[in-house]
Amino acid sequence: MSLLVIGTMAFDALETPFGKVDRIIGGSATYAAWAASNFVSSIKQVSIIGGDFPKEEIAALEARGVAFEGVEVVPDGKSFFWSGRYHMDMNTRDTLITDLNVLAQFNPQIPDSYQDCDYVMLGNLVPAVQMQVLDQLKNKPKLVIMDTMNFWMDIAMDDLKKVIARVDLLMVNDSEARQLSGEFSLVKAAKKIQAMGPKFLIIKKGEHGALLFYNDKIFSAPALPLEEVFDPTGAGDTFAGGFIGYLARTDDITFENMKAAVVIGSAMASFCVEKFGPNRMQELTPADIEGRVEQFISLMNVHIEVALAVSA
Amino acid sequence: MSLLVIGTMAFDALETPFGKVDRIIGGSATYAAWAASNFVSSIKQVSIIGGDFPKEEIAALEARGVAFEGVEVVPDGKSFFWSGRYHMDMNTRDTLITDLNVLAQFNPQIPDSYQDCDYVMLGNLVPAVQMQVLDQLKNKPKLVIMDTMNFWMDIAMDDLKKVIARVDLLMVNDSEARQLSGEFSLVKAAKKIQAMGPKFLIIKKGEHGALLFYNDKIFSAPALPLEEVFDPTGAGDTFAGGFIGYLARTDDITFENMKAAVVIGSAMASFCVEKFGPNRMQELTPADIEGRVEQFISLMNVHIEVALAVSA
Repeated sequence: MSLLVIGTMAFDALETPFGKVDRIIGGSATYAAWAASNFVSSIKQVSIIGGDFPKEEIAALEARGVAFEGVEVVPDGKSFFWSGRYHMDMNTRDTLITDLNVLAQFNPQIPDSYQDCDYVMLGNLVPAVQMQVLDQLKNKPKLVIMDTMNFWMDIAMDDLKKVIARVDLLMVNDSEARQLSGEFSLVKAAKKIQAMGPKFLIIKKGEHGALLFYNDKIFSAPALPLEEVFDPTGAGDTFAGGFIGYLARTDDITFENMKAAVVIGSAMASFCVEKFGPNRMQELTPADIEGRVEQFISLMNVHIEVALAVSA
Repeated sequence: MSLLVIGTMAFDALETPFGKVDRIIGGSATYAAWAASNFVSSIKQVSIIGGDFPKEEIAALEARGVAFEGVEVVPDGKSFFWSGRYHMDMNTRDTLITDLNVLAQFNPQIPDSYQDCDYVMLGNLVPAVQMQVLDQLKNKPKLVIMDTMNFWMDIAMDDLKKVIARVDLLMVNDSEARQLSGEFSLVKAAKKIQAMGPKFLIIKKGEHGALLFYNDKIFSAPALPLEEVFDPTGAGDTFAGGFIGYLARTDDITFENMKAAVVIGSAMASFCVEKFGPNRMQELTPADIEGRVEQFISLMNVHIEVALAVSA
């Protein structure tokens, strides 16, 4: 099944307690495409870049099956630039610089060759632009998932809620779920968010794993306990790419298969944080991924004889 | 198998965002005994109480198979009193009052009738008193587990480390694991703590579940996502009581069975927080517990075809 991904393709400058980089490839669609390309052979990318975006990065993604027809290149423009500094706990960060550059003029056009996509990922981006993509889809996809962040809740909540109302699955982190719903309890937050439209909700909790909600069902996936988290940038986008890549590959959007996809997404995210930027994603082998998924299964595997648990 | 539990039996005054109580039964050994009594029919309690400790509370525990021969009663003394206020997130709290009362003179004597215990729980208490218990055991138990808290790390770290060196399993929360080890990464913290003596380590993460470490193996158990956490007091003691109660009942201290015991402990803790103090623990039926354990299994259950995960 082919997958449409919209999001940013960008440069990042990053500071973590373990070091800093001044200029590294980033962007939600970049991370998502790298992750998803392990599972599907056809990814239709939608984004906008400046003439400064490296040709070899494009070639590397094309070699992974990523189509660039829907990626607008502004030859004399500069790519979106984000700079951030992570705190010691790696769960919180300060944004230092946001230079929209070509992103300010982004008016995505979905090529005809993209209209066959059954799986759509609206990566983290201006909600109005995410909406433009939905408006241009001629066939109803099997599944539309959406990632977003607190920034859009602060400045574009109305637009954001309109997009949320039209997607099948929303993914946010725990503090974003609380902000969006006004509820502290994640269970209550999930109910309110599901009432906004999405049948499925994923709440990402960083080092504490992720929760998947569907009706009254909940699935809890752990994160892999790591000796070191080197750089969390892109972990959420990578999770999303791995999640929908696996769903598109298996072409099964039942709750049971989504649970597996959450684990696959978590496994991909656990690689992402091991090096700066998407570096680790670019060197993964299928054996690496299979090994990591086995680690997750081992981390979660338990057998309990419930009937034996309690004395009469 | 019979179980020896040492810890406090006390009164608590509690304030949470949902209400307050001025005087309710509490104490690490009280919560642990209530939890464990669902799994084992013989619990040998070691504690100290004042004449103010309610006779009906003692009778209720005796009816559950809890022996009081090792519980010293100081007729004209007052029971230990703790008062605390929880913050909105329910993961952090301020201690308002700590009145040691009879606890200041606690010099536990292990009765001969307690010497057959194969399972020993050193509940949260002065480390030197935990050590006194170990020194009085004539037979080596199959398993000694220990709970403690940051308070003892602040004022009695040397004593604490001596006890830790002698137990099979230590349980602490995440911030305590960091304080004890000086490591921020929980994986690194676990390695350092295991090097201090305990083969097994449990790191409790409150609403984020618990991690069990053994050699290079890790098991991650979720917490049950709850609509409301009413009062977290005693949740850690209840977890410990459920954990060791299940191990004593099944008499199996393999890593595989300890994983199940972590889930059982988590299930018991999820009840504890639903009402003030031990109230919820006192009304549980076996069917309640079986139902809750089923919920945990459902929360964690996933099937992944690893070989199908990755495209070649």
